[in-house]
Amino acid sequence: MGTGEAEDRLGGTGVGAAGARNIRLVLAYDGTPFLGWQVQPQGPTIQSVLEEAISRITGHETKVKGSGRTDAGVHAISQVANFHTASRMAPEAFVPALNSLLPPEIAVLAADEVEPSFDAQFSAVEKTYRYRIFNSRIKSPFEHRLSWHVPAELDVESMRTSAMQLIGKIDFSSFRASGCVSSSPIRTLKDIAVAREDAIITFELTADGFLRHMVRNIVGTLVEVGRGRFTVEDVATILAARDRTRAGVAAPPHGLYLLRVSYTPA
Amino acid sequence: MGTGEAEDRLGGTGVGAAGARNIRLVLAYDGTPFLGWQVQPQGPTIQSVLEEAISRITGHETKVKGSGRTDAGVHAISQVANFHTASRMAPEAFVPALNSLLPPEIAVLAADEVEPSFDAQFSAVEKTYRYRIFNSRIKSPFEHRLSWHVPAELDVESMRTSAMQLIGKIDFSSFRASGCVSSSPIRTLKDIAVAREDAIITFELTADGFLRHMVRNIVGTLVEVGRGRFTVEDVATILAARDRTRAGVAAPPHGLYLLRVSYTPA
Repeated sequence: MGTGEAEDRLGGTGVGAAGARNIRLVLAYDGTPFLGWQVQPQGPTIQSVLEEAISRITGHETKVKGSGRTDAGVHAISQVANFHTASRMAPEAFVPALNSLLPPEIAVLAADEVEPSFDAQFSAVEKTYRYRIFNSRIKSPFEHRLSWHVPAELDVESMRTSAMQLIGKIDFSSFRASGCVSSSPIRTLKDIAVAREDAIITFELTADGFLRHMVRNIVGTLVEVGRGRFTVEDVATILAARDRTRAGVAAPPHGLYLLRVSYTPA
Repeated sequence: MGTGEAEDRLGGTGVGAAGARNIRLVLAYDGTPFLGWQVQPQGPTIQSVLEEAISRITGHETKVKGSGRTDAGVHAISQVANFHTASRMAPEAFVPALNSLLPPEIAVLAADEVEPSFDAQFSAVEKTYRYRIFNSRIKSPFEHRLSWHVPAELDVESMRTSAMQLIGKIDFSSFRASGCVSSSPIRTLKDIAVAREDAIITFELTADGFLRHMVRNIVGTLVEVGRGRFTVEDVATILAARDRTRAGVAAPPHGLYLLRVSYTPA
């Protein structure tokens, strides 16, 4: 599995076989109040809040590992994590137990016991991210945490045509954040869908892995096409340049959602 | 026009002909961070935040009047308000000017100049409220501010049948909050629609006016039907009793939206 949107190859949290059982969680979260997934000394993260809740239930300090980091403000519709525990509680009982302790911005959707070798990060084979744009002249008070507000009219057709050029096993250096430490800039982008429903434009990208800020850099560039500032051909040129300075600015984090993590090849 | 969900007959704010022009605004807001519509000494309200922004633009203290109060936590998809001003700014210019000053939870959707006699409260002839329920065993982090989470399975068909009995010119004393000071408990409920789409159940109620907490008391009672605790016949009995203590508890405010205010008879 390649790296996730926020360099998840770096994300190892030293989770070992600290207990007899390996529990997998499926999580959803509104990333607004958190400093991202990964534990930070400066404030609450999804991982830190989750570890505290799990530790209270298991009665021992428990480390949790996610499929990858998500940046501050980024959401998850279906994030996968796992932890080892000595607790003998029925796995499915973690769902109501954790939900009663977690803040409203984090929900545990499912829990089950998996084989000891399962690792939410390294067992993953594919991920899908969704990006939401609220494309309307006037902002919406119900969208400000959940999508990027772009007032300018966007041409979905030209964004879709541009996006198609990014499908394949490609060197994505032009869409890689400067701080990305991944050993290779090559990822296989399997699908990229662009759709409009009323004022909401949705992008869904599926790949074997993502470089740091790769989705946000791609969306930021496609929006330049949708606005008419870049042409479809410009996107091909930017991709071929393998140079981050050529692409558009990154789309903001609050429009981004980790939608799906797959553990068997599609 | 009868009273709104939060006793809007009391809502007069003494707006007079303080200026030569009468400007009408259409507003949307996420009510979560506010103590309701009406100015309160204890903290920010939609009215107070709006009056401050308008006053900054007009250069004189400006009072704004809404079609009715909304309670703390209640949202609006389309609230109407008006203010008198000496400002000579083009009415439509208030939209971007106000949106640049207002917090992200309030948006001005439209502004126009109306005749001097227009009064957002007293000129209104009909209102529609929407109520949203998130009906799923597990909470959603994206719904916690925007809907009432009801984990129990709800039977939409029996809620709809019960709701039909509430249509007409009726004494709604059984669904009137104890603090309601409206002179008459009679309102004409013109329509009440109940619909499910995936996990979201939506109620839409249209009437010539609403008693205090009327929508929330009706929805709370219908949910008791949906759960199987009340029968369709129980709702008829509750309505006939004209006694607030007989109905279900009020649904919480954060699922309620002021959807539409009409100024000409439908």
